[in-house]
Amino acid sequence: MNKKILPGHGSGGKMMNDLIENTIRRIFGGSSVQIDDSAVLKLPHGRIAFTTDTFTVTPIFFPGGDIGRLAVNGTVNDLAVMGAAPVYISCALVLEEGFDTGDLEKILLSMKSEADSAGVSIVTGDTKVVPHGRGDKIYINTSGIGVFERDPERRDIVPGDRILINGTIGDHGMAVMSERNRLASSGALKSDCAHLNHLIKKVTDSFPGAIKFMRDPTRGGVASVLNEITKGRSFGARLFEENIPVRNEVKGVCGMLGIDPLYVANEGKVVIIASKDAAERILDVMKRDDNGLESAIIGEIDEEFPGKAYIETEIGGKRLLPLLIEEQLPRIC
Amino acid sequence: MNKKILPGHGSGGKMMNDLIENTIRRIFGGSSVQIDDSAVLKLPHGRIAFTTDTFTVTPIFFPGGDIGRLAVNGTVNDLAVMGAAPVYISCALVLEEGFDTGDLEKILLSMKSEADSAGVSIVTGDTKVVPHGRGDKIYINTSGIGVFERDPERRDIVPGDRILINGTIGDHGMAVMSERNRLASSGALKSDCAHLNHLIKKVTDSFPGAIKFMRDPTRGGVASVLNEITKGRSFGARLFEENIPVRNEVKGVCGMLGIDPLYVANEGKVVIIASKDAAERILDVMKRDDNGLESAIIGEIDEEFPGKAYIETEIGGKRLLPLLIEEQLPRIC
Repeated sequence: MNKKILPGHGSGGKMMNDLIENTIRRIFGGSSVQIDDSAVLKLPHGRIAFTTDTFTVTPIFFPGGDIGRLAVNGTVNDLAVMGAAPVYISCALVLEEGFDTGDLEKILLSMKSEADSAGVSIVTGDTKVVPHGRGDKIYINTSGIGVFERDPERRDIVPGDRILINGTIGDHGMAVMSERNRLASSGALKSDCAHLNHLIKKVTDSFPGAIKFMRDPTRGGVASVLNEITKGRSFGARLFEENIPVRNEVKGVCGMLGIDPLYVANEGKVVIIASKDAAERILDVMKRDDNGLESAIIGEIDEEFPGKAYIETEIGGKRLLPLLIEEQLPRIC
Repeated sequence: MNKKILPGHGSGGKMMNDLIENTIRRIFGGSSVQIDDSAVLKLPHGRIAFTTDTFTVTPIFFPGGDIGRLAVNGTVNDLAVMGAAPVYISCALVLEEGFDTGDLEKILLSMKSEADSAGVSIVTGDTKVVPHGRGDKIYINTSGIGVFERDPERRDIVPGDRILINGTIGDHGMAVMSERNRLASSGALKSDCAHLNHLIKKVTDSFPGAIKFMRDPTRGGVASVLNEITKGRSFGARLFEENIPVRNEVKGVCGMLGIDPLYVANEGKVVIIASKDAAERILDVMKRDDNGLESAIIGEIDEEFPGKAYIETEIGGKRLLPLLIEEQLPRIC
């Protein structure tokens, strides 16, 4: 096989077939599934969740993950936070002419390994090649289908509800930024890229009626998710600064760049709004999952600033967390 | 709204929200569906088809269509040829910084109009922005879900089966190539871009047991589809040159460029393999559909060259139609 992607790899001809057969299908496997065309699938229920995401992260390899791992986990998490069990995903590649096929293989292997661990099947795909200078190595779209194992039961968010997260914030964004800009760091910065469907299932199975809302705080970070929840509502979201888990390394780089970690993308985190009385027990369940060891209750819903998200600092000050106008960290996912 | 796409349009912030609210959601509509996250969907059956395709065609506007129309129809057709009724599609945009938002709107309107006409709902989406020189105006991924209204019933292809197509070949590829390279043409070259789910439903509803195979001959054209069908099999595919509908304008440009129309991409065509005894009646049904007025029986399955596709010319000569090694026409879809 060629060492570099050539325009012919995106044709309908033999080069494309070879790439699909010898690389993509070999890695993703599954004689019963089709990688290059529609897949025929059987679902246990007629009610599904459907999502799509294109990943354009740069660099494509970063501490804690790569674009392939991100592409699988991002879509798995989008389904999981809807309360659905992710089952099938697609993989559509846009390859830049000249891209290293060894790197492609690493990325596909990473996708396969992550999909296996998440329990999803990669069942259909597409491959396009664009000329040099019309892409950036590789962009990956993953779309996903999840099934609902029970009817979605979601009660209204009310004052007093608690805001939980399954660990430290800002790791993904800062790891990618540091790698991209070769910022000096102790090497401790690492993306939190992970699939959360198993953790989420434990929580929703244990507390089906107590979960009011779940969302993965990717682009725009935790602050943007809280803005989304509170926008136009009669309640606000108050965060307790001292409860928010942030690694010192992340704090350091954020401080250096003048960025608030609450706006930095995460790729292995879920923000959960849960009823007050169940919050501590939910926290216990989360902490027993490998992806939730540092879970914390980071805030609560209240009525002090309706429609707003704000943070109460350790010394008692309060600061609004507005939705940012534009992005601080481009191409983080 | 800004006139050009800026990096902030791909952030998790206000600019992205405005783009989604004021442009994408306004055009795609539907208060019951989410455009920027997972959609929760109800399916009538548990058996589905799932497909994905990224469209990187250049130029993005061409005679007979645009990248948006192509993106909807391509995915609708991928589902339809599987025998599924397309119901839901996703829309993931990769926008290049500096892309004209007026053009974006035209493309989204085109997607919406085509989706409405095909009877599919655009239910979930994603928007990423890449820097100038890391994309090419706009790439669109559409993934799609189709449902099976009956259990797929597909009998084996056998010698004697007929090969049908719903009209002229090569129109899409030649229209795009001519537009891209500003080739002199009478202006008669026009993409055949169309959704075929309605035509296909008529055929499969009328002749459920007679259809052996359906495929849309996009990249690689009709010749590549026939290679796919016959590869490693005990039968071959014989085409009758005089029966293959090709517009004179397409013949002309193909001749000039030294390209065989059988290898040129179509975006509104379906190749159908059907049992001999039903072929003429299927042809009649196809001809009564707006997208099948020039339908023809273009060949048959035989055993003369097992595993091969070949063409019998008007003067009785025979020529093999091998799978091409690499692409003749890049970025045609």
